[in-house]
Amino acid sequence: MNKKEYITRQLGRTKNKKYEAYVVTRIIHLLNDLTVKFVTQQYVTRPEGRALTDLYFTQFNLHIEVDEGHHFNGANIAADKLREADIINATGHQIIRIDATQSLEEINDKVKETVDKIKEIKRSTSFIPWDIDSEFNSETYIQRGYIDIADDVAFKTIKDACNCFGHNYTGYQRAGASHPDIDTILWFPKLFENGEWDNQISRDEETITERNINDDKAKSYILSHIEDKEKYKHKRIVFAKVKGNLGDILYRFRGLYELDTKNSTEKTGLIWHRTATRVNTYKQNQC
Amino acid sequence: MNKKEYITRQLGRTKNKKYEAYVVTRIIHLLNDLTVKFVTQQYVTRPEGRALTDLYFTQFNLHIEVDEGHHFNGANIAADKLREADIINATGHQIIRIDATQSLEEINDKVKETVDKIKEIKRSTSFIPWDIDSEFNSETYIQRGYIDIADDVAFKTIKDACNCFGHNYTGYQRAGASHPDIDTILWFPKLFENGEWDNQISRDEETITERNINDDKAKSYILSHIEDKEKYKHKRIVFAKVKGNLGDILYRFRGLYELDTKNSTEKTGLIWHRTATRVNTYKQNQC
Repeated sequence: MNKKEYITRQLGRTKNKKYEAYVVTRIIHLLNDLTVKFVTQQYVTRPEGRALTDLYFTQFNLHIEVDEGHHFNGANIAADKLREADIINATGHQIIRIDATQSLEEINDKVKETVDKIKEIKRSTSFIPWDIDSEFNSETYIQRGYIDIADDVAFKTIKDACNCFGHNYTGYQRAGASHPDIDTILWFPKLFENGEWDNQISRDEETITERNINDDKAKSYILSHIEDKEKYKHKRIVFAKVKGNLGDILYRFRGLYELDTKNSTEKTGLIWHRTATRVNTYKQNQC
Repeated sequence: MNKKEYITRQLGRTKNKKYEAYVVTRIIHLLNDLTVKFVTQQYVTRPEGRALTDLYFTQFNLHIEVDEGHHFNGANIAADKLREADIINATGHQIIRIDATQSLEEINDKVKETVDKIKEIKRSTSFIPWDIDSEFNSETYIQRGYIDIADDVAFKTIKDACNCFGHNYTGYQRAGASHPDIDTILWFPKLFENGEWDNQISRDEETITERNINDDKAKSYILSHIEDKEKYKHKRIVFAKVKGNLGDILYRFRGLYELDTKNSTEKTGLIWHRTATRVNTYKQNQC
């Protein structure tokens, strides 16, 4: 997908609220900067719960919300739509609210002010221009030396994630892969009920539970994992499979999780707690 | 409806083509001028037939078309949708085409150029700022002294049209009304099959046919009109009832038509030919 496709499709999606399309297209056209990336209708996790924001500037961790007096909130969002959705952690992000109940002139003034603010943020921070061709490349993160949850990192394929950790795959479809550290694996789970698995991630993303829906299979899976730390690694770098907001599949970095052997039971399934939100990357051919 | 409602609803309708919303919102936001009126998806009559244009600047008789290689044309437009639609005569209007098959940068350049051109047209012509409160008022046209088809005049109610010709109605619902000239009446027809009437207007708007679908009624109606010029006036100022593109009802000025007594037969119905595209207006209480 090139920027033309990306931008027009993103702008074409803004239809939840009466004045949303007006405000969102106005911000983008007046900002008038093809080096600035944006996402419309991004699901985010905040301390107060999950929500949709109308416009998200990924390089600035900045969200714009068009405020019409009645908000989207967790209760408004259909649970089944949210299950598979690409959700980013917006804790610490900045939010600008635009009051759409005001007059058109006041809305236009607020948009102008917002656009000026975005330009100022761009000037005053170490800005990396949006490069739609490289943003999903392993090489970008290998050169950076790490992957951090604050950067909202996602890959289009499993192999691209694997290749950040010493692999040199041209294709790879399995849900797990090795890591230079002997006690760690890469994991690419669906974090919702799927097939014979019922995996879940907590709203704050700190805890993942993993369980087979078949009680016998669950029991043997859980026991073998707890007992054989050598074979079944207790550290997993997690890239969750999610559906991006243009319908594309993404593998979204969630962090490093470690198995909680004390609290994982046959009933609860395996319980994984996040122990790091940044992991090192490795040059190719390190595995 | 205020400008805020009008503008957001107009911009919200642009969904026929892939890049249409991008181009149309970009032009409007970069033009950034609340004194300039625009209409999206306006049906127009041109020498080559009826069509939809993507963006129409009424004050400049200027249309913008987003060109994606496959055009809307007469054959693409469902006939039943077109029947009742508000169609303006765009003969002599200017059209700017924007090639949306180009790159985003080239599209943006062309939009910039178009916006500059609109600003130049505004500067170089006698510009009347868009006043959403007065544009449908009788008083506007009484002061002007005339109603001309080139100005795309339409009213929201029959009384507003009547009051341009000496009346002082606060409400009026009939399809005909008197005129200061004794040989002329005002006519507010539906120019398509409706109830017991089958009225039609030609594509070039020069000819209207009027016929009752009941043969006996049609015969007596036609004969009495042809024979009694005193009672059944042979000149009609026509405001056709149409559906505006936001679903609102409008009475669109079509011109002065005169009865063609030679060619009106029981079979054809009454045939009216346009003899003027401008008519004088009158101060109130002249009737």
